[in-house]
Amino acid sequence: MTSNNPVSVPLPRSGDKLLFTPGPLTTSLEVKREMLRDAGSWHFEFNAVVARIRKKLIDLAGLGHRSGLYEVVLLQGSGTFGVEAVFATCIPPQGKVCVLANGAYGERILHMLQCLRIPHLALRSAEDTPPDPRALDQILGDDKAITHVAMVHCETTTGILNPVVEIGGCVRRHQRSYIVDAMSSFGAVPVDFEAAGIDYLVTSANKCVEGVPGFSIVFARDAALRACEGWARSLSLDLLSQLKGFEKNGQFRYTPPTHSILAFDRALHELEIEGGIQARGARYARNQAVLQEGMRKLGFRSYLPPKHQSFIITSFHYPEDPGFKFDTFYRHLSAQGFIIYPGKISLADTFRIGSIGRLFESDIRALLGAVENTLRTMNISVPLPAPKTADGSPG
Amino acid sequence: MTSNNPVSVPLPRSGDKLLFTPGPLTTSLEVKREMLRDAGSWHFEFNAVVARIRKKLIDLAGLGHRSGLYEVVLLQGSGTFGVEAVFATCIPPQGKVCVLANGAYGERILHMLQCLRIPHLALRSAEDTPPDPRALDQILGDDKAITHVAMVHCETTTGILNPVVEIGGCVRRHQRSYIVDAMSSFGAVPVDFEAAGIDYLVTSANKCVEGVPGFSIVFARDAALRACEGWARSLSLDLLSQLKGFEKNGQFRYTPPTHSILAFDRALHELEIEGGIQARGARYARNQAVLQEGMRKLGFRSYLPPKHQSFIITSFHYPEDPGFKFDTFYRHLSAQGFIIYPGKISLADTFRIGSIGRLFESDIRALLGAVENTLRTMNISVPLPAPKTADGSPG
Repeated sequence: MTSNNPVSVPLPRSGDKLLFTPGPLTTSLEVKREMLRDAGSWHFEFNAVVARIRKKLIDLAGLGHRSGLYEVVLLQGSGTFGVEAVFATCIPPQGKVCVLANGAYGERILHMLQCLRIPHLALRSAEDTPPDPRALDQILGDDKAITHVAMVHCETTTGILNPVVEIGGCVRRHQRSYIVDAMSSFGAVPVDFEAAGIDYLVTSANKCVEGVPGFSIVFARDAALRACEGWARSLSLDLLSQLKGFEKNGQFRYTPPTHSILAFDRALHELEIEGGIQARGARYARNQAVLQEGMRKLGFRSYLPPKHQSFIITSFHYPEDPGFKFDTFYRHLSAQGFIIYPGKISLADTFRIGSIGRLFESDIRALLGAVENTLRTMNISVPLPAPKTADGSPG
Repeated sequence: MTSNNPVSVPLPRSGDKLLFTPGPLTTSLEVKREMLRDAGSWHFEFNAVVARIRKKLIDLAGLGHRSGLYEVVLLQGSGTFGVEAVFATCIPPQGKVCVLANGAYGERILHMLQCLRIPHLALRSAEDTPPDPRALDQILGDDKAITHVAMVHCETTTGILNPVVEIGGCVRRHQRSYIVDAMSSFGAVPVDFEAAGIDYLVTSANKCVEGVPGFSIVFARDAALRACEGWARSLSLDLLSQLKGFEKNGQFRYTPPTHSILAFDRALHELEIEGGIQARGARYARNQAVLQEGMRKLGFRSYLPPKHQSFIITSFHYPEDPGFKFDTFYRHLSAQGFIIYPGKISLADTFRIGSIGRLFESDIRALLGAVENTLRTMNISVPLPAPKTADGSPG
């Protein structure tokens, strides 16, 4: 690792650049190949694919044994459209939402509620700190107007994994409804819907199921969603009407991203072949462990304490070397076939590296080689020196 | 045509079933092949594609010579999401919309306005009759609260082409804003934005540009859209924020359908190669003429009078033969590789056949052969007898 010769970097296996991002991510060639067909969005053969996908998603969520307790709705657009659809459809006219926020995606929910003119309240914690169930307990005890609590499961702002079951227990004790943005975790991090008391959970096609972007996926407790008649604040984002459309004739109400749907059908099949959520989670966990250890050896410091770190995405502090420019670093890696992700944390200079998608340990090791190579090209000594503490002594 | 031998039906050229629908439609294999890559949605290479697409769309709309007069915004989701985004973003809190409706898509706009709690008024005409500029003139003279007028250009409910310039002239005389849903016409039917006085025009990726579904396209008069600050009723559907996102860093605010975008870039290139809007419109017009003449020879009656018929999609009355079941007819055609479209007209039993997408005269002729073949298989005499008039005599 300390030789002055540039490290040899294996070419990415597909010829494409590899995406070390939280999605859109690298998918298998077989998934993409499904998009070489044009399907009729009203056609019975396409409807059969949609029905199969919806059934498989219910099974994947561990809800297949409780027929009719939960529904799944596919909605055109990005994951954010799915999250907003829950609020636009499911908050009653007199409702109020408490949002647990410790990153940009929690803040995005607050922004949505503002646009939708829905009363809301933020319970913020620091970006490296999970929300505190005791603080929520007090708020829900004090403010009886709150009808719903919303939280992001894995905040990809940092990579923190928030305590979905503990918070859910508190929400349930207070008999409120619980909305979980599980965008980047569903499909790899197991979630027990009933133990967590989840009413709505949102994810998207291009995350851990390893499909391509084009639609979001909303799981909804059947009784909760059916009670929302007449509340929708948008036609396109009306989840209940979307569900009724599927039930009526098996179709999306409006043009679906047919190619993304076909690709997702294949992606679900590949998830089964891999061994389901547990096996996929294990691969991603291995990716993340190899990444974190390799980056540590190169002298990078990760932003989160290990106990809060998910295996989805990891934030690393910039090196303290004044010669480090993120844009240069990013472009060098891109030229070698590796696309990483800029930081989004408000109080620290970081960048992010995702460990999800069709990536394997060998890809992570190739990336680590490219990172070392790039630092040398930038005339930054490897391994990076230990960071200095505030008083100037080695930390 | 009157032989009793089944007509031989050539196989569709791509091996896929051909879509005679108003979109999603049949696209070229080259367009679909672009989707065999995973692109980073924040990556500079992808941003360059988005910028190129936006520039080409402005040129395609004939707006390239008036730099900055119009903007184009791409929005995730189906075309309906783009239409709703215009209303959700651009109608002021005290605004009121007059909707000219002669089909399901006009009615959909009214439904949207209801969901968005935006005051509105419908000026309806029969499904085979274009809206009357004189009726609009009177309404706009009487009701000074109306701020915006909205109309669908080609109502694919029937296939009628509404008079976008004449209505626009009336809107302009009354100094109101003009919103055109040109979903299925843009890219093949020329529209002069300035002559028609258009403020907002919406289309989608999977119509006459022959891309795949995944996003809508909104053209907006720059001064009109920038005046909408603070009016957005949704975060996801906020067109002004979406525009500012492109201007800030070249990116979509939220995950774009990366594969659809790459395919669209190729689709625009193929539209240029074909010779632009005029040449594409000429191909579709030829498709429609061959279709209409061939169906007439088989004894089918089209729903619209020729003067209102677009070359996008054509509605045909069901044969009067009691042996005709649309579902059987549809499935026979599907088995032969041709997907047609059910009817949507409220007062007549019709089905629809689209003439847009990567279809050529030979495809239309193959479809006509399959239609004849199918009628014979259903034991329906060909050509169909002339329809009876109300008193029972031949019409």
